[in-house]
Amino acid sequence: MASQTAFFPVAGVRVGTAGAGIKYRDREDLLIVELAPGSSSAAVFTRNAFCAAPVILAREHLGRQAPRYLLINSGNANAGTGDTGLQDALACCQTLADLTGCQAAEVLPFSTGVIGEPLAVEKIRRALPAALAALSDTAWGKAAAAIMTTDKVPKLVSRRVDIGGHPITFTGIAKGAGMIRPDMATMLAFIATDAAVNKAVLEYSLRLAVDESFNAITVDGDTSTNDACVLMATGRASAPRIETNRGDVFEQFSRALGEICSDLARAIIRDAEGATKLVQVQVSGARDRQEARLVAYAIAQSPLVKTALFAADPNWGRILAAVGRAGVEHLEIGRVQIWLGGVRIVHQGARDPGYSESAGQQAMEGNEISIRVHLGRGEVESTVLTCDLSYDYVRINAEYRT
Amino acid sequence: MASQTAFFPVAGVRVGTAGAGIKYRDREDLLIVELAPGSSSAAVFTRNAFCAAPVILAREHLGRQAPRYLLINSGNANAGTGDTGLQDALACCQTLADLTGCQAAEVLPFSTGVIGEPLAVEKIRRALPAALAALSDTAWGKAAAAIMTTDKVPKLVSRRVDIGGHPITFTGIAKGAGMIRPDMATMLAFIATDAAVNKAVLEYSLRLAVDESFNAITVDGDTSTNDACVLMATGRASAPRIETNRGDVFEQFSRALGEICSDLARAIIRDAEGATKLVQVQVSGARDRQEARLVAYAIAQSPLVKTALFAADPNWGRILAAVGRAGVEHLEIGRVQIWLGGVRIVHQGARDPGYSESAGQQAMEGNEISIRVHLGRGEVESTVLTCDLSYDYVRINAEYRT
Repeated sequence: MASQTAFFPVAGVRVGTAGAGIKYRDREDLLIVELAPGSSSAAVFTRNAFCAAPVILAREHLGRQAPRYLLINSGNANAGTGDTGLQDALACCQTLADLTGCQAAEVLPFSTGVIGEPLAVEKIRRALPAALAALSDTAWGKAAAAIMTTDKVPKLVSRRVDIGGHPITFTGIAKGAGMIRPDMATMLAFIATDAAVNKAVLEYSLRLAVDESFNAITVDGDTSTNDACVLMATGRASAPRIETNRGDVFEQFSRALGEICSDLARAIIRDAEGATKLVQVQVSGARDRQEARLVAYAIAQSPLVKTALFAADPNWGRILAAVGRAGVEHLEIGRVQIWLGGVRIVHQGARDPGYSESAGQQAMEGNEISIRVHLGRGEVESTVLTCDLSYDYVRINAEYRT
Repeated sequence: MASQTAFFPVAGVRVGTAGAGIKYRDREDLLIVELAPGSSSAAVFTRNAFCAAPVILAREHLGRQAPRYLLINSGNANAGTGDTGLQDALACCQTLADLTGCQAAEVLPFSTGVIGEPLAVEKIRRALPAALAALSDTAWGKAAAAIMTTDKVPKLVSRRVDIGGHPITFTGIAKGAGMIRPDMATMLAFIATDAAVNKAVLEYSLRLAVDESFNAITVDGDTSTNDACVLMATGRASAPRIETNRGDVFEQFSRALGEICSDLARAIIRDAEGATKLVQVQVSGARDRQEARLVAYAIAQSPLVKTALFAADPNWGRILAAVGRAGVEHLEIGRVQIWLGGVRIVHQGARDPGYSESAGQQAMEGNEISIRVHLGRGEVESTVLTCDLSYDYVRINAEYRT
């Protein structure tokens, strides 16, 4: 459902973009999201100890007041910038507050781009009036484009669902293609809904959704300094207010949010730096979720597995080696089974007698590959999305910044 | 000191090679190491749960008898091969035992190469007489070449040291260029000495040496299924027998062994798949060794750091992000300092005011790069060796097998 063009506006939300010239020329790099009074918001942020100045400030502002504006720039992460970075982020919030008549604490700042460079505060300040003038409820396509860095395509998903017989809308955008291995948080993603939701329920549902979507993807294992995911609920839909995290109405809301987050997470992996394939790694038969994820990430982050995927080479020995080194205690290899697509390649810890190289080859073709591992230890299952490792990943990351 | 030509023979050790045609044409792929009676040996093996059949068998044989022969093949790892793999490895040992008049349990088998293919037992058996006929105490160069897989150069180090006023000799070989992130063990490495050493002391000194050498390198984070390091002591030197792990004589032996292992580990990283740079990551100011290593490996295994190293781009924000995501609890980023070579790039958690891009650029030139991180939490330090991530890494691993 990721699309640049088709989306539903969200009552109570306007977005406006402008070109501040922070790093990129000939494109917009600044986004303002405006929320109607009475909206509630929830967010999750990176757990990287070197979290960026805007992350620190956004977390603080969100704890104090319900946000009225989000201010997002691309081209500079304002991370590794110390106290100056905090002052810079606050100065941008203050200017937007002055221009709109709100308080600085009602503005949440977000930045994405190069780490360690001072933020171009003056450029951002000068571009704010243009972004405000551009505010509209139909500019979501431009909004998704303005937050891109090494992304090739903007990521925008939108859907309308029935909740207790009333339609509500979700529209969300995300950016991210490298330094992707969200940990208890996510990349930059902004999701708006016109549902009316109690703030505690909003936070709970966001954590649930993020954990199974953004927190289950990896491009390169590098957790960013700037990850953030914000969920905004304006309450303008006719649906009844959601006040509890139980019952049908909550389940419907939570399921729809989960699908939006999964669509955006999938769009990030599809656009991963240099990626030619989308790879789903599903680990089942685990004792608990932690060990299922441990094995899934060991496979999904193995450069050897990822280069074999790039070459469409059914080099299953590399998958087996990754399972073996994942750190599962007392793994009984005789119980392990591995499939490539529908083809079982490993049975009882060794090559399946029925496996043929040509069947493996066939399973590696196409743009979407599925790797399934059954550990034979329990009933728990977890899935991680990743991509292959190509020449272009090296090129993009050897050239970025220059 | 890695060299193909200059080495000291080790009294009591002969090596012989032959071409079995397992996978490679026009080169030798089989090595026999013969130990004089009375030699003692110690070994460490991979902790990968999917350890290869020869690893299982070598560990078992070593526990039963003092080895007389090592039998090593390249081109096939005999891993992921189940019970058949064990029978195949044993069959090769038995044939060598029959040809030499020893017992199968006195032969330690080792294999390296593609995972998951059945071992070419007959080819190996047929080549054994030629390898035995070639046994000599001066064929170490050929021995180092016979165990190569994606290695570009053979890895052979040799040195003579004085122990308690008597000369003893160490000569060792290793192979490895990819699937390198030894964990409590190492790649294939075989080190011989003419020292006389008590077996318990031999084991202890090998663990010490391996932990600071082979266990402190990474190419791609992928711990192999076949890692093994064997230390053989023939006792033919005039030096006194080493019976305890205390005192000057043990210290001298242990230091010399540590240097041999470090030289071989360094040779592996120099020859790492696609590597253009040798990178030393030193983390100091840690509370304990575990957190120092955690941070060092987070940097050394970051694809983003490694591609920046390939591009000679002083993109220190990626190093900072890796430190931040390493998982050190309660890291105070204001205490963190980072150096590139002699240039301090991060001070008090942010860009050093004295840092200039040109100074950073200069520190990235040359074939050897040093990254130093001071955590400001304690007194412990640890160093990990790694390499950059280049187009050639992708090419080699996308093409390998085909």
